[in-house]
Order: sequence, then C-alpha cells, then structure tokens
Amino acid sequence: MESKNSKIKVAVLGATGMVGQRFIQLLENHPWFEVAALAGSSRSAGKKYKDACRWYLEGDMPAAVADMQVLPAAPPMPVQLVFSALPADVAVDIEAEFAQAGYTVCSNSSAYRYDEDVPILIPEINAEHLELLELQKAQRGWPGRIVTSPNCTTTGAVFPLKALDDLFGVEKVMLVSMQAVSGAGYPGLPYLSIIDNVIPFIGGEEKKLELEPRLLLGKMQAGQRISAPTVISAQANRVAVSDGHTICLSVKLNKTAEIEEVKHALQNYAWPQDIQELPSAPKLPMILREEDDRPQPHLDRGAENGMAVSIGRLRACPILDLRLVSVVHNTLRGAASGSILNAELLKARGYLD
Amino acid sequence: MESKNSKIKVAVLGATGMVGQRFIQLLENHPWFEVAALAGSSRSAGKKYKDACRWYLEGDMPAAVADMQVLPAAPPMPVQLVFSALPADVAVDIEAEFAQAGYTVCSNSSAYRYDEDVPILIPEINAEHLELLELQKAQRGWPGRIVTSPNCTTTGAVFPLKALDDLFGVEKVMLVSMQAVSGAGYPGLPYLSIIDNVIPFIGGEEKKLELEPRLLLGKMQAGQRISAPTVISAQANRVAVSDGHTICLSVKLNKTAEIEEVKHALQNYAWPQDIQELPSAPKLPMILREEDDRPQPHLDRGAENGMAVSIGRLRACPILDLRLVSVVHNTLRGAASGSILNAELLKARGYLD
Amino acid sequence: MESKNSKIKVAVLGATGMVGQRFIQLLENHPWFEVAALAGSSRSAGKKYKDACRWYLEGDMPAAVADMQVLPAAPPMPVQLVFSALPADVAVDIEAEFAQAGYTVCSNSSAYRYDEDVPILIPEINAEHLELLELQKAQRGWPGRIVTSPNCTTTGAVFPLKALDDLFGVEKVMLVSMQAVSGAGYPGLPYLSIIDNVIPFIGGEEKKLELEPRLLLGKMQAGQRISAPTVISAQANRVAVSDGHTICLSVKLNKTAEIEEVKHALQNYAWPQDIQELPSAPKLPMILREEDDRPQPHLDRGAENGMAVSIGRLRACPILDLRLVSVVHNTLRGAASGSILNAELLKARGYLD
Amino acid sequence: MESKNSKIKVAVLGATGMVGQRFIQLLENHPWFEVAALAGSSRSAGKKYKDACRWYLEGDMPAAVADMQVLPAAPPMPVQLVFSALPADVAVDIEAEFAQAGYTVCSNSSAYRYDEDVPILIPEINAEHLELLELQKAQRGWPGRIVTSPNCTTTGAVFPLKALDDLFGVEKVMLVSMQAVSGAGYPGLPYLSIIDNVIPFIGGEEKKLELEPRLLLGKMQAGQRISAPTVISAQANRVAVSDGHTICLSVKLNKTAEIEEVKHALQNYAWPQDIQELPSAPKLPMILREEDDRPQPHLDRGAENGMAVSIGRLRACPILDLRLVSVVHNTLRGAASGSILNAELLKARGYLD
Repeated sequence: MESKNSKIKVAVLGATGMVGQRFIQLLENHPWFEVAALAGSSRSAGKKYKDACRWYLEGDMPAAVADMQVLPAAPPMPVQLVFSALPADVAVDIEAEFAQAGYTVCSNSSAYRYDEDVPILIPEINAEHLELLELQKAQRGWPGRIVTSPNCTTTGAVFPLKALDDLFGVEKVMLVSMQAVSGAGYPGLPYLSIIDNVIPFIGGEEKKLELEPRLLLGKMQAGQRISAPTVISAQANRVAVSDGHTICLSVKLNKTAEIEEVKHALQNYAWPQDIQELPSAPKLPMILREEDDRPQPHLDRGAENGMAVSIGRLRACPILDLRLVSVVHNTLRGAASGSILNAELLKARGYLD
Repeated sequence: MESKNSKIKVAVLGATGMVGQRFIQLLENHPWFEVAALAGSSRSAGKKYKDACRWYLEGDMPAAVADMQVLPAAPPMPVQLVFSALPADVAVDIEAEFAQAGYTVCSNSSAYRYDEDVPILIPEINAEHLELLELQKAQRGWPGRIVTSPNCTTTGAVFPLKALDDLFGVEKVMLVSMQAVSGAGYPGLPYLSIIDNVIPFIGGEEKKLELEPRLLLGKMQAGQRISAPTVISAQANRVAVSDGHTICLSVKLNKTAEIEEVKHALQNYAWPQDIQELPSAPKLPMILREEDDRPQPHLDRGAENGMAVSIGRLRACPILDLRLVSVVHNTLRGAASGSILNAELLKARGYLD
Repeated sequence: MESKNSKIKVAVLGATGMVGQRFIQLLENHPWFEVAALAGSSRSAGKKYKDACRWYLEGDMPAAVADMQVLPAAPPMPVQLVFSALPADVAVDIEAEFAQAGYTVCSNSSAYRYDEDVPILIPEINAEHLELLELQKAQRGWPGRIVTSPNCTTTGAVFPLKALDDLFGVEKVMLVSMQAVSGAGYPGLPYLSIIDNVIPFIGGEEKKLELEPRLLLGKMQAGQRISAPTVISAQANRVAVSDGHTICLSVKLNKTAEIEEVKHALQNYAWPQDIQELPSAPKLPMILREEDDRPQPHLDRGAENGMAVSIGRLRACPILDLRLVSVVHNTLRGAASGSILNAELLKARGYLD
Repeated sequence: MESKNSKIKVAVLGATGMVGQRFIQLLENHPWFEVAALAGSSRSAGKKYKDACRWYLEGDMPAAVADMQVLPAAPPMPVQLVFSALPADVAVDIEAEFAQAGYTVCSNSSAYRYDEDVPILIPEINAEHLELLELQKAQRGWPGRIVTSPNCTTTGAVFPLKALDDLFGVEKVMLVSMQAVSGAGYPGLPYLSIIDNVIPFIGGEEKKLELEPRLLLGKMQAGQRISAPTVISAQANRVAVSDGHTICLSVKLNKTAEIEEVKHALQNYAWPQDIQELPSAPKLPMILREEDDRPQPHLDRGAENGMAVSIGRLRACPILDLRLVSVVHNTLRGAASGSILNAELLKARGYLD
C-alpha cells in the first residue's frame, strides 16, 4: 500500500453541502486521493469545517476534516485535483479559474456539461470522450482541465441505453422518472411539501434528460463528439424517497431484438479492462433483477456500494419496442462516487501525472 | 326534501373493507339512497357491524350502521340496489346471484368488467353504454343487472383521453402511473415495504390499464360496444402516498392539435345535462391546473369532494404529440364515489323504477 | 343572517405564512368576521396576495383575498380586530403599535404571552382571565388590547389538566410530546431531516410547556392572575406527522381519584354557556376515547373541525397517580381556530362594541 | 483465522421472519459461528430457504443459505447452538425441547424471559447472571440451556440506567418510548396505519418495560437473582420510523448527582474486559452525544454497527432528578446482534465447550 504522503491531494469545492459531504465521506479512506483542502461560500470561509458545516450524513464527520479551515473557493490551493459540488451559477467562473490555474476539475455542476469541448463522462460508458480534453486545451488554452459528470437521472437511464445502443441502436426513449428528495440537496424540499405527495415537476430537469444521454452516447469523430440522434421525451417527478431515483423507460430500437437478446446485452455489457480495475469501479455496472417487482430504490440503491445501476421489469412495449425500469443511487453513482470514479480514470490514464 | 322513508334502500357488500367503509361514509347523508343492509364474509356475518369492522377512515363510524347486523353476502336483502366492494374472485358468483335475484348491482370489482354485455361506466364519459344492459338482459336473462366501475387509475387517465378523443382522436397512449397505497385496500402494503421506496410493479394492473380505456372510449353500434382502437402501453408503480394516483401520459392524436386547442378541449368538455344534476356529480369533472408543478395528489385529490380529476403540465412531446399529468382520488372518484354516481345515473335514467 | 356589510372587519398579520393562511381559510365564511386587510413583511407588502403568497393548504386560495393588496404590518388599517401570526421577534413592536392605535389584537405569537397583564386565553378554560384587560389598560394605557393564545402543545395538555385541576387539584405533571412538523411553520423541517426520524428537541419549547399551563390554570384574585403551583417537567419531540400533536402525560393529583372518577371529570367538564354558543366552539372541547390505541393524530386531529382535544389511554401510574394521552390539532385548535374563538369571545363579551 | 470447518455450527429458528433474516445476515461472515441449519414453520419446512423466504433486508440473501433446506423447528439438528427468533407462543415448547436435547438456546422470545432461573442477558450489563444457569440446570435438569435477550426498548433504556444505578442507585424511572415499526416484525404495521401518525399503544409492551429493567439490574445473591427495587412507569408509542427506538427517560436517583457526575458515569461505564474482546462487542456500549438535538434514530441507530446505544439531552428534571434521551437500534442491538453477543459470551465463558 502507498504511504499516505504519496496520495494525490484533492480539494472539495462546496464542501458544506450535501454532495460536498458525500465527497468527504467517500474520500476518507481512498487509496489514491487525500482531502487536503475544503472550500465554501463566504459564509463558511475562514471557519473550521466542523463549525461551518452541519453534518447531514449517517455516521460522524471524519475526524481528519473537522478542524480543517474552510477556504474561499479560489486558487491557489495545495492540491492537484478539485472536486466541484458547486451550484451551476457560481461554478461557471470558479471552475474556469481553477482550470486556468492548472488544476484538474471533476465537476458535478452543469456549468460546462454541455460544452462541445468538455467531456460529460461516465467511465464505463464513454471513456473515449476524454479525447475532448485535447479540443478543450486547444480552444481554451487552459493548463488544467474540466471533466463533468452527468445529471443523476441521466446516469440511471444511460447505462441500459448504452448497452442497447451498442448492439441494436436506440432510436427513441420515453422516460418517466421518480426522483429522490436528496437530489435537491439540503435543505431541499420541506417535509410538508413532499410527504404523502408526488410533485410532477423538477425545474430544468426534463431538458437535461432529453439532451444528456445523447451526448453520452455520442461517438468521437476527428476529435469531436457527434451527439447520438436518439430522440428522448422525459417527464420528471419528485417522490417521497430519500435516496435512489427510479426510472421507467420505453425504448424504440433501430434493430429488432428479442427480450432474451436484450437481457443478454445488459448482462454482458463490455467495458474497458483498465476501468474495471479502478478503486471505485463496481464489479458490474448493471445488475439485472429477475424478480417481478424489482428494482426498488430502498432495496437496490445500495448495490455495489451504490455504484451499480439495477435494472428490471424487462418486457415488450405495445407502442415502442421495449420497457424496463432502472434504479440508481443519485448521490453516490449519480453524484459524488461518479465524480470520484472520473478522477480515478483521469489518474489511471495519466492526466494527473 | 324527500322524507327518509322514501329513499331507495341499498346494501353494501364487502362492508368491512376499506372501499366498503367509504361507501358507508359517503352514503351517510345521501339524498336518494339509504344503507339498509351490510354484508361481509363468513368471518363477519352475524356480528354487529361495529364489532365486525375496524373503522379505518377519519371521523367515526356513522351511528346508523354501528349496530346493524352484518349479513352473509347473498340475496335476499331488503334493498333495491347493491354496491359491491367484493374481491373479484368471490364477486363473480355473488354479483351474479344478486342480478339473478332481481337486484341492481353497482360493482367495483373486475369480475364482470370486461364482459361484452356489462357496462364499465363513468357517467360523464360513456353514459350511452347503459344500452348494453339490454344486451345483458337478452344474453343472461337476469331480472336484475350489473354495472361496473373501472379501475381507479383508468378513471384518472380516461377523463383527459375522452376529451381528446372526442375532438382529435387518440391513437396511442404511453401511461406511467404512481399509485397510492390505499389502492391496495387495507391492510395493503406494510409500512416497511413502501416507506422510502417505489415499487415498480402492481400485479395485473398494467393489463387492465391497457384494456379498460379502450372499452370506455368505445362506441355503441347496433346495441354492441365497439372498443376504441387506441393502443396503450402502461407502467404501474406504487409510491408512498396514502390517497391519490398520479399519472404521466404521453398521447398521439389522430389529428394535429395545438396545445391551446387541447387546453380548450379539456376545459370545455361536454357531458350530458342530466348527469350534471346528479347529487354526486362534480361541477366540473376535469380541472386544468396552470401552475408549473400541479396537479399533486396531496393538494388536488380532494378537488370537488374528490370527484374532479385534476390535469396539468400540458406540453408537447418530442416522440408522440402531447404530454400531461393527471391526478385522481382513487378511493373516491376511482372507487366508492364513482360507483355511487353510477347508481345515481341508473336512478335518474329509470333503471330503479 | 347578518348581511355581509355588517360583519366585523379584521386583518391578518403574517398573512402569507402557514398560520396566516389558516386564518384566511377559516375566516372565508365566518358569520361574524370578514377579512378586510392582509399584512406581510416588506418582501410581500405592495404585491397582490396571490403574487406574494404560495398557498400551502389543501383547496385553493379563497377568491376574495387573491387580489387583495398586501399591506405593511402597521396601523392604520380599515379594520377593528387584528389576528397576528407574526414571529415573536417582530410581533413585540407591531402588536403594541396596533393596541396603542386602538385595535384589538388576537395574537398567536409569544411576544406578550407571559406578561402579567395579558391574557393567555382558551375560552373553555380561563375566560375569566379577560379581567386582566383592565390591568392591561391601567398599566399600558392602550385604547386597544392584546389577547394571546397559548403554544399548541400547551393547548393539548391543558384541557385534561384543567378538568382534573377543577376537581382534584394537579400537583405535578410529566409531559412528553410528539409534535407535528406543521408546528414549525413553512418551510419548516426539511424532508431529509425528519423522515424516518424523531428529533428529541424543539428549541425553547420545553420552557414554554413548563410555564404556560400554570398561567392558564391560574386563578384571578383582586384583578391579578395567580399562577397555579403545579410543577411540570416537559420533554418535546418532533415526529414525522404533518398535523396533530400527541402528548403523553403523567399526573400527580392533590386529592386521590379513581380512574372512573377521572373519566367522569373529563366527560363532564363544565364550561360557560355563552362560550358553548360561539360560532367556532366545539360541541365538546374534550372527547374521551375508550379504545386501547386511541387517540391517534391521523384519526383524531380532525374531531369537531379540529377544535376538540381527544384523550385516551387513561390508566394509573406507578410513580405519579394517573397516565393519559392527548391529541390536539396544532394548527387549528392550537393556532388559528383557537385565536378565532378568542376573538369570538371578545365580541360576545362586548370588547368589540 | 480459523478454518471454516472449525467454526461452531448454529441454527436459526424462525429463519424466514425479519429477525431470523437479520441473524442470517449478521452471521454470514462471523468468525466463530456458521449457520448450518435453518428452521421454519410447517409452511416453510421442506422448501429451499430461497423459496420459503421473501428477503426483506437491504442487499441480497447470502448465497450460502439460499439453497439450504428449511427444517421443522425441532431437534435434532447438526448444530451446537440455536438462535431462536420464534414467537413466544410457539417458543415455549420448542425452546424447551432443544434445551432438553442438549442444545444451547439463545432466544429473542419472551417465553422464558421472566423465569427465575433463566438469564435475561446483556453482556455489558449483567454477565454475572449467567450463574443462573446452574439454578436452571438444578431445577430443570436440562443438559442444554436457555439464555434470553430483553425486549428491544428495555435494551435502549437499561444501558444508561445501569451506569446510573452502579454509582447513584436508580429509584424511579418514567419512560416514554417512540418505537420503530420494525419492532413489530414483518409485515407488521400497514403503511396506512402509521404514516402521518403516532399510535400511543403497543400491546403488552409497557408491562415488559416496567419489569425487565428490574431483572437486568438485579443482583445475584446465593445463586439467585434479586430484582432491583426500581419503580418504572412506561408509556409506549409507535412512530413512523423504520429502525431505531427513541426513549425519553426521567429518573430519580437514590443519591444526589450533578449533571457533570452523571455525564462522567455514562462516559466511564465499566464492563468486563473479556466482553470487550468479543467479536460483536462495540468499542463503547454507550455514546454520549453533546449536541442539542441528538440522539436521533436516523443518525444514531447505526453507531458501532448498531451495537452502541446513543444518549443525549442530559438535563435536570423539575420533578424527578434527571432527564435524558436514549436511541437504540431495535433489530440489531435490541434483537439479533444482541443475541449473537450473548452467544459469544457463552462461548468465551466456556459454555459451548
């Protein structure tokens, strides 16, 4: 095992929020990374982390960060890589400053997620999009770089879509999500708003869900990402669940496929060997449940430490071709853990040398 | 006002269950009907209602029924009309016995719901299907009759579909439901199964949802009901809501329509004048919500005493034509109140004379 | 019935908050009062109510207030009586200004609740404390007056305590509350904080619960209120309930009493005849439940339009004398409806002439 | 590490229920014990475990038990020790049969819990009560033995009570519990009964809570257990929490103690060294939380793998001496994990040789 001193030092921007806390929790005993700096808003900066932050997660705040002083979210910082859990409106400037100052930024925000020269990355899905970093360097001249993670619901949907697209081509997708409350951060939704209720609206979400899978399924061509031609219709709902988004999908394929072939495609999804060996990689990124009534967020969100997407209810659709249900842990696979896996891929592929 | 003695005497079959209790609660001060008999399973028969029944609903058990003796569910009974809240497997025999014995049966069960000579009825939607009772009489020779109510989720979906079908024709429907726990009756789902969870499966439900709207939208022709050719794909989910089903719909029309035309169609839905004057009829069977984030079951299920379906989020669909969300109170409009309105229609149209 | 113009005009201060909305909802068809002015913070003042206010309650915002302009919370206003749903810190100045300007203030805030010359009033409990208004006039010289309502949990506890105190004397009270989320207003507690949880702490609450019942049970003597000598120990908890506080009480009496005597005392509690005829008065202010497992907030909070406190589980205590459980609707009896009943009493007793 | 074959073989009685599943989950990788037999009711016996059992817990059923055949709950079994998660009414015969046949029974049921010659055991509290097994042998003549675990709420209460009793003597205890739904097993409470609700009653519970701590705090004298003279008044409530009981306590001590002394007593509770080294023992059996609003079941039930009881809100009581709040994980510390720790103690002290 490496000595602690040889770990790569990282910072967490937006460290007091819910995703920031997840980063800290997940990085506590990470074999490659070590939290060396925490940044927060002007309200937090200057305080000790334990005084600036109300810890929301189960278990106690890791002792190693409790007395760390919260810094303003700006370079320089004594780190090599920066995880950003910033809101999009402030991320747009701050993430650029860090990239400009030579840092590698792994971002959960949507600030740069849709730019043609910024990878929106899930290692098991589109690692080859890292090639966009050359375009990014060419266009922006940054000594550092920005890599982004997709929206949490996109993440849950795109795994089965990718497996299907590889073999049969995905032409159309009807998507209805039932999203957990933690997706709105903390404090997020008041109890009185969501208990005994469904809210059939999440601001801005449907637009993201209709675009992001097309980017993730895009093919690289001459250093550029060509979006997939898939047409997506999304309906986003908030339900009374703490963690774990459930997604009902109906899919039209380019090429006819029997349910058994689809099953086979999902169970035998191929992904690069080097990614399978990353510390946070799941053994399988997709788990196919055969029970009638699975996946369920309560039972399946924790699969493979929250890194595996669970899929079930595979069956034909009388209108499109195929129906299925997907469950993803939105604050792990769909947020903090997903970004950490991105960082691990960057390290493994030499971007942090 | 009529004197109490002149009211039509009715029975409730399955009186101790959740829908049975709703019937009793709703009929407590009904201007036309008076509960004169209660029937239950062999476990309850012979006991006083208050001893046979654990009252689940808010408020106390109506005093008038507390000391009534629960009867076995079989004719004869000193009533003219029978509301059936029986499970389908026992309803099949018992409802037939009552019809055979000359009673009018208004049933919530699915036992006869799909038979070609049994109306599956929502007064505001397809009152003309009562004509099927002639076919029923001809085929079965019953001196009485059976009229059924649709599944509660069907009810929430078919209102907007009917308004659209009248003007534009509905060709295809993608339907994803988020259904309340009370839809499974009492005790229904254990707390531990559905709290902090979504269950993406309800046994038998999707098949019903793919068939029932086609019957309700069917046209009468030479005394027969011709099912609508609409193709429906349904995905049914259970969510942590007590009452009120939420339904995401995506619809393909036969004839192009602008969103404003659709709005107009929903807001100006035409229904027979005599039905508008029934005691349990809502002022409007559909309420169009203009807010971004409505309808919501918690806020909208109670509209018009739970008899109005609330509709919102009307917008175009990139794959089919149109998306919208519907909320229906599943144990009122979708169950007991719906059946009572059916009985009122039967009375108003002379079937109880 | 009086014509609308003859109604007493009232204002609601803090009109956009949860209790403010309850006032508006409850006053919509009040026989004596008519909402003629709404006041809010500087953020709301100047806007139409429908633009300033997100309506949280079931049902729609009453049409009569939707276009009313929200005023700053300061006299003069074209009204005679003011309902205050202000937070205590701003209520302290604003309520005094209104009293100084000649208005009658019925307040839910704790700003003046503990002052020796301000009634903390529940009509069925301590109507004779209105005599304190003379002391108030003498000491403050206000042409108007302030009358306050107790804390919502106090209200649930003090009903049975008063009935016991009248007959047996209450020496000591151990009180453990399980309080609904709506007690914290809106937005109040985040879903993520209270779902699947109990929070055994509510800031400032226990102190109130240990003091307020002593004031309500106090006796008038020479124009002064002498606090009851009862010793109270309170433990306040927040639970995942929307409305309805549940309170476990253990009580030591001055005089021995059999459980049957206690039952009798609760069921035959005597209260002034003129109060029984107020429009918002319950038929019975206390309902004694005999079932093993009642009262429950879900089933009992709505009793008598939320105005009756439900009591049950009466049994001996191995340490003190007596144990029982009380349930009160915290935003109706314990807040808005309680204040409206106070205002009705003021009117009936001539304070608004 | 020992080879697998050298592990002590154990059986789980009541293996398909919720506590039975917990046993299986917890024993999956236990260093000393290995599940070698599963027993269920006649409904399950003869089936493979995976066919007899619907797995309720997060994560999948351990592969090692999936194909194990469920046996009838009767000796002989190829094991040395039996964990019983049977209901009390059937446990009374079956547990005796196993003890009679030479097996050691670690039981969660209450069947033998109150017998004078059966230890009701929490290793950190009253390990010396194992001496009762000699009395048991003398009185019953069993070659085996029965050791029981207390009720889950007792467990949460008795830890702080024991620490206080050791130093100051506990004279009286007022106890109000807010208990999780999992305490009622599966299916347990219907969602519709407990959502948005508190049920202030749990059948038989209060009697247990008023007796069991007296047994656990009892002193051994001449081979007999002398119950503690503590007087306890218990009020048990069910709340909408999945796991984790919260208990409000008010305590009268025999000897005056300052809050700081009490804190010290809780933080420095002394327990036998050999127990501290058991595989399932927590590092600390009690964790004192200093925050205003802790312990909370959602945040604290998982402390030390659910084996530590969390205590907080230590403060004086105006009626008795001391108030505090305790949180215990009811299905781990309070059920399956607690019994496993008992079994470990039996092994460590030579009862399984």
